[in-house]
Amino acid sequence: MVKIAYQGIEGSYSYLAGNKFFSKKGKFIGTNEFKEIFEKISKQEVDYGVIPIENSLAGSVYENVDFLNKYPVKVCGEIYLKINLFLLGIRSEIPIDLRLKYLRKVYSHPKALEQCKKFFEKYPYLEKIAFSDTARAAKFISETEDISLAAIASKECAKIYNLQILKENIQDFDFNYTRFLIITHEKKYKINKKADKCSLIFVLSHTPGSLYRSLEVFAKNNLNLTKIESRPIPTRPFEYFFFLDFVFKNRKIEEIIDIIKEFSKRVNKLKILGFYEEGKLG
Amino acid sequence: MVKIAYQGIEGSYSYLAGNKFFSKKGKFIGTNEFKEIFEKISKQEVDYGVIPIENSLAGSVYENVDFLNKYPVKVCGEIYLKINLFLLGIRSEIPIDLRLKYLRKVYSHPKALEQCKKFFEKYPYLEKIAFSDTARAAKFISETEDISLAAIASKECAKIYNLQILKENIQDFDFNYTRFLIITHEKKYKINKKADKCSLIFVLSHTPGSLYRSLEVFAKNNLNLTKIESRPIPTRPFEYFFFLDFVFKNRKIEEIIDIIKEFSKRVNKLKILGFYEEGKLG
Repeated sequence: MVKIAYQGIEGSYSYLAGNKFFSKKGKFIGTNEFKEIFEKISKQEVDYGVIPIENSLAGSVYENVDFLNKYPVKVCGEIYLKINLFLLGIRSEIPIDLRLKYLRKVYSHPKALEQCKKFFEKYPYLEKIAFSDTARAAKFISETEDISLAAIASKECAKIYNLQILKENIQDFDFNYTRFLIITHEKKYKINKKADKCSLIFVLSHTPGSLYRSLEVFAKNNLNLTKIESRPIPTRPFEYFFFLDFVFKNRKIEEIIDIIKEFSKRVNKLKILGFYEEGKLG
Repeated sequence: MVKIAYQGIEGSYSYLAGNKFFSKKGKFIGTNEFKEIFEKISKQEVDYGVIPIENSLAGSVYENVDFLNKYPVKVCGEIYLKINLFLLGIRSEIPIDLRLKYLRKVYSHPKALEQCKKFFEKYPYLEKIAFSDTARAAKFISETEDISLAAIASKECAKIYNLQILKENIQDFDFNYTRFLIITHEKKYKINKKADKCSLIFVLSHTPGSLYRSLEVFAKNNLNLTKIESRPIPTRPFEYFFFLDFVFKNRKIEEIIDIIKEFSKRVNKLKILGFYEEGKLG
């Protein structure tokens, strides 16, 4: 049985993304930090890791972009997860309308609290309390018997922690997706035959036009970049490494590898994170 | 007297950057959030704002990149500030060595605590306590009479809050600079004659090579990009706007404006944030 590391506890979005990608098959191992996932993979203690890389509202998870650069891992898959934010409380027979009046404190991850502005404007008497993550907030509420407390977490947390759904989909923007990458150890990595997307990390020389000249390779080969991100190199002040990905539908992998070879001549340092099948939204 | 808004209280790095840029002339107005600075400028309640835009170790301050896109502000200057992290406690006559033994809790901004890993490895009994910002942590310590508490904050906070320096420069990396931008209202903005740097925000069409074709304008005109950053557009899932800046030493502003006109034809939406004099490190 494959071992899959994710950040958080059962019901976290990383857990849900991992379950969706691996169709619930595998042993899921929760960690406290993203870093632990990368370390477990580097030591080959687990087969795969599930890491969020960007959210359609909040942008990149820069911490994980940095870890992809630092650790000897490969990207072998991606999956998009729709983020639903539900208001969850302990089970009771009190009608929902009254429950909402009794409510005083709402626990969740700061980003989740932030993404429910309209809900909090409607219930201005509610105190927002920042918690390490959404699933832990749900678990915490389930361990109280306090009807004045609620958590904002995934719908699935209601089932996992036996909580009552007090309000559905309270996020401001309905179109809220997180893109997760599936990572593995370099030694375990194999190119998926269905691969049509590739992620790279590279460093450029500090001369005019260096980014332009490197991107020329993709433009002239008609490859569409889906993301480009710059991150600082701590030991080289105000110098950057780049994270880039592109799609190559209906093109042969051998052709793409040749294009990457040409690209490698125009950059200072190149790490091919991996070839994988593009995830679908929804 | 000009009014200058900055985030934090006296002694914060934004405060220090503002004082350095304006040579201490002006009325400095502290805010709780970055957003308040942008709102005060939009309403013309203040003349200038000082905002951190990137740090050599932590990368961009993405929140401020997003606000530059959202609010009708112009960039009229930049300044680099070296970040020094000092361990500060209440004044006492106890020798420093003994003080460090009595110490139990250290308060600071999470990023500052993170940047002093080596210090905390040397004193593993110290509890790290996250605080909203470094200057507030220093102020908080100054209001206690507790020798078991300390703050990590700027050297200048020792003077402002009458604290004792327990240890100097405890940051892991000595090369730790933050780049601040000076912003103003569109109506107050004038191009500085010494301007040799420009910042732009733009949106691209979602077609292969669109980024490449836009950057061609800078490459063929031999203009060096100093930063490019992509950020999500919340209303358009997984689409991005770009923040870019470039330097143009010994070139006429008229020539640069013509180049930007050419660039504007290759992008979907363009906001010229402003022309300003490049800041110097150190």
